[in-house]
Amino acid sequence: MLKLYYAPGACSLIAHIVLEELGVPYEAEPVFFNTGDHRKPEFLRVNPKGKVPVLVTDRGPLTELPAILTYLAQTHPDAGLLPVGDPFAMAQVQAFNVYLATTVHITFRQISVPTFYADGEQARAALAAKVPEKADEHFALVEEQLSDGRPWIHGDHYTLSDPYAGVFATHWQRPGMGHPERFPLIAAHRERVLGRPAVKRALADEGLGDAWWSGDLGSRK
Amino acid sequence: MLKLYYAPGACSLIAHIVLEELGVPYEAEPVFFNTGDHRKPEFLRVNPKGKVPVLVTDRGPLTELPAILTYLAQTHPDAGLLPVGDPFAMAQVQAFNVYLATTVHITFRQISVPTFYADGEQARAALAAKVPEKADEHFALVEEQLSDGRPWIHGDHYTLSDPYAGVFATHWQRPGMGHPERFPLIAAHRERVLGRPAVKRALADEGLGDAWWSGDLGSRK
Repeated sequence: MLKLYYAPGACSLIAHIVLEELGVPYEAEPVFFNTGDHRKPEFLRVNPKGKVPVLVTDRGPLTELPAILTYLAQTHPDAGLLPVGDPFAMAQVQAFNVYLATTVHITFRQISVPTFYADGEQARAALAAKVPEKADEHFALVEEQLSDGRPWIHGDHYTLSDPYAGVFATHWQRPGMGHPERFPLIAAHRERVLGRPAVKRALADEGLGDAWWSGDLGSRK
Repeated sequence: MLKLYYAPGACSLIAHIVLEELGVPYEAEPVFFNTGDHRKPEFLRVNPKGKVPVLVTDRGPLTELPAILTYLAQTHPDAGLLPVGDPFAMAQVQAFNVYLATTVHITFRQISVPTFYADGEQARAALAAKVPEKADEHFALVEEQLSDGRPWIHGDHYTLSDPYAGVFATHWQRPGMGHPERFPLIAAHRERVLGRPAVKRALADEGLGDAWWSGDLGSRK
């Protein structure tokens, strides 16, 4: 059986949502950063990087969110979360997910883990000060992607990219992260993603409710 | 015909190498950052992100290196650069490539484009000062991956991950980037990658020679 290691509300929530969308049996185990679970030997044996998500399969663990999502969609093609028979369309989904991984996620980490980039109090402040400008710049391309009036990131079909965008757009609601109120298409898309029963089930599993998704990221049910 | 937009010696070199490995006809057009080609309207029409690589296909442009590489390998399965029939093995290749994209590449950018992260001279210095520690930490996992004595990143078969690692390990040779001399398995792997005729052809196409690959990154033939 598949097993997901996740941290509540982290990017691993996207893999959690996709597992719920697939409707397959799986186990989900929380890794709490605040108690240092990710640095404990038993977790480092699963993932030496000390990061989530990790998806343990019958052939071993997989890391890196875009790769985990593609694996899940490729092994469950009937769920239709990735156009697996069309390499070009599949590459567009991949490109979008990798774009978020290398831009938005990296930018938000300047606040959540500033020592990834630089040491010292002045550097910490300079890193945080840059986040709103860069996050807005990154999300402008997502807003543009949604400007054709179709409901989902890649058009008429819900794909891996939709919960990917939805979760990061939720993180963006936190104070000091940018100006999500200037991006109405992303806000409407985020509400559509929340309308998926699989999203509500994954949120509930992680002890998070609709209030969390709506921007109250400190909330736990 | 496929068309690649690249900047000489940038990460787009990896896509260039893969195109050479495939042996298919393609066109390659340089985008020179120092003359601002990437900010010119004609290039922004191809890629609004203003970045390379871009692969223009008969169905439109693709961006984001890991997605471009997967597309090329999936549409040319006989080249054997990706285990396309095996979603788990394919996810391992993807995970490695995404790991480099979200760690090594992001870390090197702290020197090449510090304003991506923070503004000001003090922040610039703090960002650069952190690079050797983080780059060495990221590459330690690559060294570990090569420790089973097999020649390539994923074992006995050359895949997309090999030029990916080789090009970034080459960038790592630059002063102030880290301590590549402490990682003998990566150095030997880099030499093996350089031994591929496709790599030498792509280097020559970009006006770079063996000296560039050996660490003299200012060199042009």
